[in-house]
Amino acid sequence: MTSQSPTPSALAFVPFVSVANMMRLVNANGVETVMRDLAAYIEQDFRRWPEFDKTPRVASHSQEGVIELMPTADAENYGFKYVNGHPKNGRTGHQTVTAFGVLSSVATGYPLLLSEMTVLTALRTAATSALVGKYLAPKGAQVMAMIGNGAQCEFQALAFRAICGINRLRLYDIDPAATAKAMRNLSAQGFDVTPCTSGAQAVEGAQVITTCTADKQCATILSDNMVGSGVHINAIGGDCPGKTELHRDILTRADIFVEYPEQTRIEGEIQQLDADHPVTELWQVMRGEAEGRRDAKQITLFDSVGFAIEDFSALRYIHDQIAGSNFYQPLDLLADPDDTRDLFGMLTRAA
Amino acid sequence: MTSQSPTPSALAFVPFVSVANMMRLVNANGVETVMRDLAAYIEQDFRRWPEFDKTPRVASHSQEGVIELMPTADAENYGFKYVNGHPKNGRTGHQTVTAFGVLSSVATGYPLLLSEMTVLTALRTAATSALVGKYLAPKGAQVMAMIGNGAQCEFQALAFRAICGINRLRLYDIDPAATAKAMRNLSAQGFDVTPCTSGAQAVEGAQVITTCTADKQCATILSDNMVGSGVHINAIGGDCPGKTELHRDILTRADIFVEYPEQTRIEGEIQQLDADHPVTELWQVMRGEAEGRRDAKQITLFDSVGFAIEDFSALRYIHDQIAGSNFYQPLDLLADPDDTRDLFGMLTRAA
Repeated sequence: MTSQSPTPSALAFVPFVSVANMMRLVNANGVETVMRDLAAYIEQDFRRWPEFDKTPRVASHSQEGVIELMPTADAENYGFKYVNGHPKNGRTGHQTVTAFGVLSSVATGYPLLLSEMTVLTALRTAATSALVGKYLAPKGAQVMAMIGNGAQCEFQALAFRAICGINRLRLYDIDPAATAKAMRNLSAQGFDVTPCTSGAQAVEGAQVITTCTADKQCATILSDNMVGSGVHINAIGGDCPGKTELHRDILTRADIFVEYPEQTRIEGEIQQLDADHPVTELWQVMRGEAEGRRDAKQITLFDSVGFAIEDFSALRYIHDQIAGSNFYQPLDLLADPDDTRDLFGMLTRAA
Repeated sequence: MTSQSPTPSALAFVPFVSVANMMRLVNANGVETVMRDLAAYIEQDFRRWPEFDKTPRVASHSQEGVIELMPTADAENYGFKYVNGHPKNGRTGHQTVTAFGVLSSVATGYPLLLSEMTVLTALRTAATSALVGKYLAPKGAQVMAMIGNGAQCEFQALAFRAICGINRLRLYDIDPAATAKAMRNLSAQGFDVTPCTSGAQAVEGAQVITTCTADKQCATILSDNMVGSGVHINAIGGDCPGKTELHRDILTRADIFVEYPEQTRIEGEIQQLDADHPVTELWQVMRGEAEGRRDAKQITLFDSVGFAIEDFSALRYIHDQIAGSNFYQPLDLLADPDDTRDLFGMLTRAA
């Protein structure tokens, strides 16, 4: 007769990275180092894009917002992220976006890591933007306009400095308090920051334009006359059906780059265009199989919606980082009976 | 300037029910009471089936097994389960099936509960089977054959006793050690148990036949000649593409009842039949809108695959149970900056 060990075996435990431990890990490495490392993991995974099992995220929409599951897998690992988007959450002291995720072993189906991903999503979103900027921004770009100065703003700025060398920022938000918050944080990080009173003012002289607003509606954060030639637009905020930031006329002037067309056509700026409007897949650019920026006058647009592979890369990075560290705690998430067929015996012996 | 509290606020924490706490909760209530309560929650949710946002589970298949996400939502709550199925896991001391799940608020997108679901899935699967048995088993059924005596076996037996009053069991497994394990556990629970040396012997005199095997292949656990008239078949093990337990000829003789046809046609025994073969949805039976068992000679078949709403019901039950209890621990899963737009400030202040 088998007897249950008094404490669960190692198989029962899943490493858990809490918000506090994620912050410790990021601060120990330095945010910009993390951005560069994350971008390297993401680039590595984009370059082996065909190896992944891909599906558009599974969204559950309500009047208040959306809850999404974003799974993907390669031959070795499976990952998914849970993420919500609730634009009115701030009114009750909740985050607009919160997230957590899991990395698992394909061979056993067992989770290898459970991690907070609110902070990690902010990091990976910015790292992806800047990685794309490395391929698409005009050569020698030094100035970035940032329209929307919410929770994602500072992360974008740090990523673009770490990866693209951009240090001059022009900030605008419909809420001056948001701009003041970003000014404070970014000045402290050594950026040359200019607060602006309109989107039109913010884009003056910018080679990169980042739009990152949170309203769940079709807005026009950028109108056609605000966008001159030779810029790269990093459009972050339009990321679900009925939520866009750019005027349609900008889209028809730009060369559009996307993560996963099947998802972006539903969620991105290009939901405003015909379903067969040409787009370029970024993984092909990163593999050298498709052209990125052709010339200095071209308008390039990264229609960012966030794809599961970026979260997978981020979870891989965290999983590698916590090995041998104290940035995690073991969580008793998995039942581990001595005899795997005797789950019931484990239960009765625990009584 | 806002300052970050030294410890996260209540909003940052998600109640977590570990395996150890789940076992404490179940043992404190008693397994059969939990089965009855779970069945009541599941029945309640089946009776309001049209209120749910439903989708077939999102499966990632590999040679070794499958990892699935099973989301669903009503107007108030969103729930999902992560579950794997890896038939060869036992060889390395891993569970064939492990699971965990989350219940969230639709209004904010915030998780309300993170729970182990390996034990809970075993409970809800059995509770669902017995709930269905209440509607479909022949009147006065006293004997159940159980083919496949693995991890799910005892849970099925206890649920059928708690909900259908069945106390006599006839057990068969291709591995005699599995039958011996189940004999030991079920005798200790006061069942009248008969070990059998073949499936054909096990079904002799049984009014209910439960098949619950784990091989990931199209097997014939029950052949046509083994199934007489007037039985209810509770087919648990056939639950993914290419994994079935019953000979096709049984299916054409039986009236087939399913959870969610869109999923069962892919995963259940009826993957062997034409896509338009008639099936009855159980929620309609439970609402009195479709006929259950018509007469004593009919063969009824519950083609069980497990649907997300059953997990949702189980998570609802656990969430209600832990309120005011010590069956959970708070987990620092969600970032909670004082200023929701100042996630970056939270990070730097933590340094």
